[in-house]
Amino acid sequence: MEFSEKLKAIPSSPIRKLVPFADRAELEGVKIYHLNIGDPDIETPNIILSSLHKFEHKIIKYSNSKGEKIFIDSLVSYYKNLGFTDINCENIQVTIGGSEALLWTFLAICNPKDEIIVFEPFYANYNGYGVMADVSLVPILTKITDGFHLPKASEIEKRINKKTKAILICNPNNPTGTLYTKKELEMLIGICKKYNLFLLSDEVYREFVYDGKKQTSVLEFNYPDGVIVLDSLSKRYSLCGARLGCMVSRNKDLVSLILKFAQVRLSAGFIEQIIAAKINEIPKSYIIKVQKEYEARRNLVIDCLNNIKGVICKKPEGAFYIIARLPVSDSEKFAKWLLTDFRDKNETLMVAPASGFYASSGMGKQEIRIAYVINKKDLKRAMELLELAIKQFNKI
Amino acid sequence: MEFSEKLKAIPSSPIRKLVPFADRAELEGVKIYHLNIGDPDIETPNIILSSLHKFEHKIIKYSNSKGEKIFIDSLVSYYKNLGFTDINCENIQVTIGGSEALLWTFLAICNPKDEIIVFEPFYANYNGYGVMADVSLVPILTKITDGFHLPKASEIEKRINKKTKAILICNPNNPTGTLYTKKELEMLIGICKKYNLFLLSDEVYREFVYDGKKQTSVLEFNYPDGVIVLDSLSKRYSLCGARLGCMVSRNKDLVSLILKFAQVRLSAGFIEQIIAAKINEIPKSYIIKVQKEYEARRNLVIDCLNNIKGVICKKPEGAFYIIARLPVSDSEKFAKWLLTDFRDKNETLMVAPASGFYASSGMGKQEIRIAYVINKKDLKRAMELLELAIKQFNKI
Repeated sequence: MEFSEKLKAIPSSPIRKLVPFADRAELEGVKIYHLNIGDPDIETPNIILSSLHKFEHKIIKYSNSKGEKIFIDSLVSYYKNLGFTDINCENIQVTIGGSEALLWTFLAICNPKDEIIVFEPFYANYNGYGVMADVSLVPILTKITDGFHLPKASEIEKRINKKTKAILICNPNNPTGTLYTKKELEMLIGICKKYNLFLLSDEVYREFVYDGKKQTSVLEFNYPDGVIVLDSLSKRYSLCGARLGCMVSRNKDLVSLILKFAQVRLSAGFIEQIIAAKINEIPKSYIIKVQKEYEARRNLVIDCLNNIKGVICKKPEGAFYIIARLPVSDSEKFAKWLLTDFRDKNETLMVAPASGFYASSGMGKQEIRIAYVINKKDLKRAMELLELAIKQFNKI
Repeated sequence: MEFSEKLKAIPSSPIRKLVPFADRAELEGVKIYHLNIGDPDIETPNIILSSLHKFEHKIIKYSNSKGEKIFIDSLVSYYKNLGFTDINCENIQVTIGGSEALLWTFLAICNPKDEIIVFEPFYANYNGYGVMADVSLVPILTKITDGFHLPKASEIEKRINKKTKAILICNPNNPTGTLYTKKELEMLIGICKKYNLFLLSDEVYREFVYDGKKQTSVLEFNYPDGVIVLDSLSKRYSLCGARLGCMVSRNKDLVSLILKFAQVRLSAGFIEQIIAAKINEIPKSYIIKVQKEYEARRNLVIDCLNNIKGVICKKPEGAFYIIARLPVSDSEKFAKWLLTDFRDKNETLMVAPASGFYASSGMGKQEIRIAYVINKKDLKRAMELLELAIKQFNKI
């Protein structure tokens, strides 16, 4: 029995393919410091958890396909609090995580083989959705030495053709932690207007911005039909497993048509929408504390990395990731070796080889992505292990 | 800004497009008996709800992409209890509802424009997934006068060509309630083996079978590489809003490759998998009570329908749906009119026009689907209303 080309083409998750080696090491009693996946270790807000404990419905029914009304209302309030006072119910479609928002947006704006411009390195799952939706991602390189900021407009315009339908960014960025400046976003808006492209902005890390900076949302720009925000509660409130996100756009035709996709899959989770309707009751102190914690962790990791001979990285302004170039020839082999061979006091660490975040083959071969989603004490130890490991690996 | 052909092509849900009219009537204080959607009114098992109240995790983390181990284990036990003792972890992929299992299966076995044979009328959302996955559904007609049982093999074989990849059934059937016999399934297995096709069986209504009959699962047949079961907890345990299902196959290569799709969407809901891991602790009496309740409702509805002049329907053996042919010229107009005009003691009913369950245009124009998911007293009243409404509608 033959499988489809899509099934064959879809890349294995670069992060998850090392998991069997990690499982084996853990079975042998090795302690692993997990810097490989963006799964926050910070507790979900109390008000959400306690609303789960008080869940009073007796039937777990389908929710409305568009989204449960009280949850949509809470999202409307959230965007109003961000200053987007014109964002209402008709601008929002609830999705099963940011992931579903991404798939539907690809399917909604692209015919088979249409192109979407992305800046590499980029969130690896964009590739998977590209394959599933039969959309070609066109990668434009950003460089570690520029802090992964965007190239100039002419570099981007060169890659636009008749098949190009959109530019997709993630801001703050996964996997680089880069926060795009207002000027960079203005440039993108300008290009999109000029070539009649959609601008898709994955803003799931919106609140994860440090050094007193503030993220600029694409919703701040006057391009109502072209701007689409892909959002998720996963990182913001440590709700990764709740699978709740949304698509936000002032293009009301798009939002109302996307409902057809939503109807096909019936509804997002009912329980989660009921509990997540409490997001506006989460005290402001929660997110401030989270920001401070991640900022301190970023500082710690950057300081440690800068003290390791041969490591190159710039201080990222947001999200909870850092891409570092290591003095190793092949970070994929290195990441695997960490799990299979390297031990110090029966401990090791797990990182994501960065090559999986590039579409162009051969890129990112010396780079790794570090997710600083473990506590500072463990992070410090993980950085010690990294330094030791680099030395040992290069002696083999 | 242009949208994709897919977005334009995807049909609006035939069930959900009447919702605005129902909303308006309800706003006006009209009581509506909802027979239009398969959202069970029976309470979710206590053990599931109470495990929600006792949920002890402090972080709602991503689950494993394949599925949370304790939930997969509970599914393995469930299938073993059904007699499929060889079904293990490596035969199961957890999905976000049966819907996701369907989409992934289409994407996994079909290249663009490949064909899947379905028997119309069929579950309307198959159409939507066909569009999203760029798969052509090839409908073969089944008739109300045959109780929607399958045509003979030669009729099916006629429709097979080089693009055909699978036959898709739903057993017991939504929207017809038909339970396929072992002989019918043997015929399908025979055809699939002969032409090297997958047999996809949507078995989400497996337990909803009446008159002491038993559903035959495609897993009972010896066609390990070709059989794929699409399953869901939604109906079985009144967990529609939990969005949990799975794909089951003895084709281990398929199950292991499908994991790549799962990794792209990261995980299914964590909370639901934790609570649904309790399914094997649900007392047998729960499902027996549910079966008895639906059987009594089916009997009531059939008796009422048979007493309405001009109505044609056969007693279905399973699920909680009945397709009835009404003595009206256009059931879509009739269904809309019920919501906009018809009132008796300020009450009306909502049904699903059956044309939306056919792919061939013009079919099912006089038919409606009734979901008997309300209590017997209300069902009786709804049938009274239906009889009255048919008389009034035909006088207009």
